[in-house]
Amino acid sequence: MDAAVVTADIPVRFAETDLMGVVHHSAYIVWFEVGRVAWMEAVGVPYAEISQMDRHLAVTGMNVSFRAAATFGDTVRIFTRLTQLRSRQISFSYEICNLATGALLVTGASDHICVDVDGRTARLPQSILERLQHGASILADDRAF
Amino acid sequence: MDAAVVTADIPVRFAETDLMGVVHHSAYIVWFEVGRVAWMEAVGVPYAEISQMDRHLAVTGMNVSFRAAATFGDTVRIFTRLTQLRSRQISFSYEICNLATGALLVTGASDHICVDVDGRTARLPQSILERLQHGASILADDRAF
Amino acid sequence: MDAAVVTADIPVRFAETDLMGVVHHSAYIVWFEVGRVAWMEAVGVPYAEISQMDRHLAVTGMNVSFRAAATFGDTVRIFTRLTQLRSRQISFSYEICNLATGALLVTGASDHICVDVDGRTARLPQSILERLQHGASILADDRAF
Amino acid sequence: MDAAVVTADIPVRFAETDLMGVVHHSAYIVWFEVGRVAWMEAVGVPYAEISQMDRHLAVTGMNVSFRAAATFGDTVRIFTRLTQLRSRQISFSYEICNLATGALLVTGASDHICVDVDGRTARLPQSILERLQHGASILADDRAF
Repeated sequence: MDAAVVTADIPVRFAETDLMGVVHHSAYIVWFEVGRVAWMEAVGVPYAEISQMDRHLAVTGMNVSFRAAATFGDTVRIFTRLTQLRSRQISFSYEICNLATGALLVTGASDHICVDVDGRTARLPQSILERLQHGASILADDRAF
Repeated sequence: MDAAVVTADIPVRFAETDLMGVVHHSAYIVWFEVGRVAWMEAVGVPYAEISQMDRHLAVTGMNVSFRAAATFGDTVRIFTRLTQLRSRQISFSYEICNLATGALLVTGASDHICVDVDGRTARLPQSILERLQHGASILADDRAF
Repeated sequence: MDAAVVTADIPVRFAETDLMGVVHHSAYIVWFEVGRVAWMEAVGVPYAEISQMDRHLAVTGMNVSFRAAATFGDTVRIFTRLTQLRSRQISFSYEICNLATGALLVTGASDHICVDVDGRTARLPQSILERLQHGASILADDRAF
Repeated sequence: MDAAVVTADIPVRFAETDLMGVVHHSAYIVWFEVGRVAWMEAVGVPYAEISQMDRHLAVTGMNVSFRAAATFGDTVRIFTRLTQLRSRQISFSYEICNLATGALLVTGASDHICVDVDGRTARLPQSILERLQHGASILADDRAF
C-alpha cells in the first residue's frame, strides 16, 4: 500500500497567517484533513458519502513535526498516504511541501476510529471498507508505474 | 428593550491574529456569535438548549464596521443588544471595545431566522419564544437601575 | 469596470462546517478574502507583493447576505468584482454560488483602506495603483467578449 | 518544576464545532496555545511581551491524544505544565477536561524554539529566560501547598 499517495495543492490563505508573519501551526492540521479528504475522493469513497451514512472518522491521535514555515503567497502541496486500514480504524501520514521550491515544511500522522452519530465506536460499513481497500490497491498499482 | 445589553470579555487569541500584526477581521464575526450566545445565556435560554431541540438560528444578514484593530495581548469587551424578536426572526447589534482603554473597535448587526434540522424556516418553539421575551424584559428592567 | 469579475473555486473543508451540519457563516468571510486575493492575482498585482511593501488593505466595512448554505462535499465558486478603486480605498463585491447547481448562496461587499505597518491610512504606492487600474481595465475588456 | 500547572477555562464556541456535532479537532490545538499563553501570564512573562521584542516561540513538534469530545454548551479546563526550559527551547504538556464532569478529553504536548523575526533560531533574551525560570519556580512552590 506504500505507493498509495494522493496529492492536493492549497494556496495559503491570508487568514491562515498570524502575527509571526507566517502560517499559524493550526492551519497545517486543517490541511491534513484536506489531504485525507482528497485521498478518499481519489480512491472513490468521498468522505461526504461516509458522513451521510451517519459514520465519522473521529481523530484519536495526531503527531506533527514542523520544519519550516509556509507563508502568504505560497502554495503548498500535501502528500497523503494511507498507513493502516481496518474495520474500525484508519491511519494516514502526511508531508506538506512548498510547491514552488519542493522544500519539506511539515510532516505528520493521524489515527482515526469509525464512530456512529452518538460517538460510539462502530465498524465501517462493509461496502465502504471494501471500496476503500479496492481503491487503495488500485491507487497503489497506478503509482507503481 | 433598549437596555437589554449583555457583555462578554474575550482575551485575544494568538491564533486570531494575521500577518498585519492585528486581529483578522473574521475573528470579530466569531466574537459576535460569542456575544449573542452570552446574551441568550443571560436571559435564561442557553443556545445549546435550542440546538438540542433541533432548531437553529441561521444567520441571514450581517453588517460590520471596523474602526480600529484589536491586537494580541488585548482583552475585548463585546456588548450585545437584542434589536428584534419575532416568532421566526431575531436580530442583534454589537459593539466591541478594547477593555483596557474603552476604545470602540468594531460595531455590527446580525439577522437570524429560526430553521429546523433540514434548514427550513420554522417558528421558534413557543416556550422558547416566551422565555426569550420574558428574559429580555427582566434584563432590560435590571439594567434600568 | 463592471465586467472585471474574477472567479475562484473552493471545495468546502470539513473544518468549515458547524453542528448545524452546514458551513459556518464566518467561512464565507474568509472566502471573500480568497476571492479578492484571486482578483488581485488576476490583474497582475498579487496581494503578497503589496504586503511585502509594508502596505495592507485593512477591511473597514463589510455586509453579507446569506441566502442558502454550502455543505461539506460542495465546491463553491466565488465571483469577485472591483467596485471602487482610489488612491487610499478599494471596494469589492462578491457572489458565492454552488458550483454544481449554480444556486446563489451568499452575496456581500467589503470596503478597504490602505494602511502602513503602523495601521495609519496611507496612499497605495503609485506603481501599485497604476497596475491595479491597468489590470482592471484589461480584465474588463477581456470579459467583454 | 512538576507542580507548575496553570489552568484556563474556555467556554466552547459554536464556531468550533463541526458537522459531527462536536468540537473540531483543530480547536484543541488553538486551546493548547491559550493554555501556554495563560501559563506565561501566570509566571509574569506575558507572551505579548516576548513578541514585542521580536522573538517568537515557534512550534517545532506536537502530539495530541483525543479521548472524548467537547461539545457546544460545555466549558473546558486546560491544565498547562512546563516540561522543559532552555535558552532556545521550551516545551509544554496539556490536559483538557470537561469542567463540569472532570472527564479527561484531550492530552498533548508541544515543543518550541525561540526564533527572531526572520525565523532564525535565537536565544531567549536573558532577562526573559531568568524571569521564566523564576516565575516557574515560584509557581511550583505555590502549588506545593
